[in-house]
Amino acid sequence: REPGGTDVSEMIRGMLLNPEIDIDPVTELLLFSSARSQLVAEKVRPLLKENVIVILDRFYDSTIAYQGFGRESM
Amino acid sequence: REPGGTDVSEMIRGMLLNPEIDIDPVTELLLFSSARSQLVAEKVRPLLKENVIVILDRFYDSTIAYQGFGRESM
Repeated sequence: REPGGTDVSEMIRGMLLNPEIDIDPVTELLLFSSARSQLVAEKVRPLLKENVIVILDRFYDSTIAYQGFGRESM
Repeated sequence: REPGGTDVSEMIRGMLLNPEIDIDPVTELLLFSSARSQLVAEKVRPLLKENVIVILDRFYDSTIAYQGFGRESM
């Protein structure tokens, strides 16, 4: 799941979903990217090395939707 | 202090400094940037709006040192 899927990404997810934490939009974007980066490094890339086909839905598209349209910056 | 200085940034700092968490170099860079972004949004920008002069040492330079030279990618 995204953001999530690795220990680091799940910690980041916890911050992003915590309503008590006020996160700046740019920070939010960077945190989503951090969680995704770790997911790619830890899970996706090793699978690709084994020639496994990896299908990711709601990946960069989610960022365009949430950080782009959701925040009315596009 | 960096990374740190805001609630969000201190949480990120905790992740970065936790030796039990294995963080990918790209994720690490994005997390440092996240912490810094929040610091700018929450602390630096409001001060600048009040015409306060803000001096930051070890800001982007730290990234060049730690993520650049420290990881021998430069």
